[in-house]
Amino acid sequence: MFLLLLTCIFFGLSASQEFFFEQNNNYPVKVGVEISKHVESLASLYQQIDVYETKQCGNMMIIDGVIQQTQWDNSAYNEMITHVPLMSHPNPRTVLIIGGGDGGGLTEVLKHKQISEVVFCDIDADVVRLSQIYFQEFKAGFYDPRVKVVIGDGAEFIKNFNNYFDVIIVDASDPQGASSVLYSYQFYQDLYAALTDDGIVVAQAESPFFHTDLIQEWHIRNKELFTHAAYYYALVPTYPSGVIGFTYCAKKYHYLNALTHNRAVPDNLQYYTSEMHAASFVLPKFLKDKLS
Amino acid sequence: MFLLLLTCIFFGLSASQEFFFEQNNNYPVKVGVEISKHVESLASLYQQIDVYETKQCGNMMIIDGVIQQTQWDNSAYNEMITHVPLMSHPNPRTVLIIGGGDGGGLTEVLKHKQISEVVFCDIDADVVRLSQIYFQEFKAGFYDPRVKVVIGDGAEFIKNFNNYFDVIIVDASDPQGASSVLYSYQFYQDLYAALTDDGIVVAQAESPFFHTDLIQEWHIRNKELFTHAAYYYALVPTYPSGVIGFTYCAKKYHYLNALTHNRAVPDNLQYYTSEMHAASFVLPKFLKDKLS
Repeated sequence: MFLLLLTCIFFGLSASQEFFFEQNNNYPVKVGVEISKHVESLASLYQQIDVYETKQCGNMMIIDGVIQQTQWDNSAYNEMITHVPLMSHPNPRTVLIIGGGDGGGLTEVLKHKQISEVVFCDIDADVVRLSQIYFQEFKAGFYDPRVKVVIGDGAEFIKNFNNYFDVIIVDASDPQGASSVLYSYQFYQDLYAALTDDGIVVAQAESPFFHTDLIQEWHIRNKELFTHAAYYYALVPTYPSGVIGFTYCAKKYHYLNALTHNRAVPDNLQYYTSEMHAASFVLPKFLKDKLS
Repeated sequence: MFLLLLTCIFFGLSASQEFFFEQNNNYPVKVGVEISKHVESLASLYQQIDVYETKQCGNMMIIDGVIQQTQWDNSAYNEMITHVPLMSHPNPRTVLIIGGGDGGGLTEVLKHKQISEVVFCDIDADVVRLSQIYFQEFKAGFYDPRVKVVIGDGAEFIKNFNNYFDVIIVDASDPQGASSVLYSYQFYQDLYAALTDDGIVVAQAESPFFHTDLIQEWHIRNKELFTHAAYYYALVPTYPSGVIGFTYCAKKYHYLNALTHNRAVPDNLQYYTSEMHAASFVLPKFLKDKLS
């Protein structure tokens, strides 16, 4: 009888397992995260935002049905989208972040002490507000005196600048919905104009496994506009295919420039090293062939 | 009315989507593959084997509830578990594969024309038999005159050899069930004895994100037994966390030896390149720190 009771409890618990799976894509592989509580569900002016408490990944933010970030595995993404361009530039002073409303990338940028100004532009105040509640580890960045927060359309905002930013980080969600304009040719022309003569721009650029045609298309555009164009990646278990890529575009500095100067890598990182900086640009043959 | 009918059809189709998700683990992230048909379900002498036809990944083999391989994304695994040791050795002639009953690794090994003998030892004849039906692209390898197939226990079989194999590939399933013995200290002592004086052994070694303690434990053992011990990885979207690692153990040749000789890399690969060979040993900082 006791055994029966135990069995019932066990199956009861098993049955109560609940997972969040991305529904808003048609990838051949789905990623699911075990959740314990749905703590926010909000239609903002621009998108549907959900926050879950998960069993093993801390808090998790979802936008339009797509996992944006968990507390457990965001370091690879946030470190690689920031330290790769910042370490490739010999002396970055002015940085613009477009998107990235959670503040994770901002937190990494601010670890570079020589940076004097970070302009942070996200279109959705609700992403910023909810992130400050559920990703409190990134909150301090918003109060750093070097930071200027703009709630607005990055694609419009960028038009105000000419020859100003040493590094621009486009930390956008997928190229559907609110972020689609952040993948356009016009936007990249405006990014080019807003950069200094030796500026670098890095952008979120999807999965090497699911978006090879798009990545090729972006690469052709980037090679046309910039002296150096490349693609690199980071391992993020909660993203579809477990890997996310970035485009690297630079007017002057090849990404291997990071290995030639003596500036120290910030402390207390989880993923980025100088060796990983270089290795992350080495692509699987199928993608290397596609981009050559 | 027509719109209502369309809506019903749409939701009917949506509802018919069916996914296979690994149940046999407690990882924080689950991976699911959309399936169309469950074509085999068999309790072999050693394990539960299932084969599914999937919507976008071709045929997929499951052992004890864990995804082993799909036709869509097996190349990274099969190329990296074989070409890394084979290219690190200047002149491999004799190769032993333990596990890998699907024949994917075998197919890659045979691309090296200078290899004169491949002994292939899997404990489960049913894995080999079903693979020859559902992964026909690997079938030819079993008929290559250089190949000797043994159905038996790799941990026992290895004891018959001394100073014999240039390269041993341990293509085992996870360290539970039938494969657990293939992760033991005794087995690694026997592998050492079976290798030639400049031999190399590479083994499947789990996810860098979910098994850091195990990987550290194996690394300590490998450093004790071998001159060179290292860990490297490949991207496999249908594996949990999207990445799978391998241990590299060598009596004489560092893995970078692959970059010092002029032997050609086999043609028609999807993932492996000489640059990827080197880059795949560059680990995220959290794992690098754990293994240093």
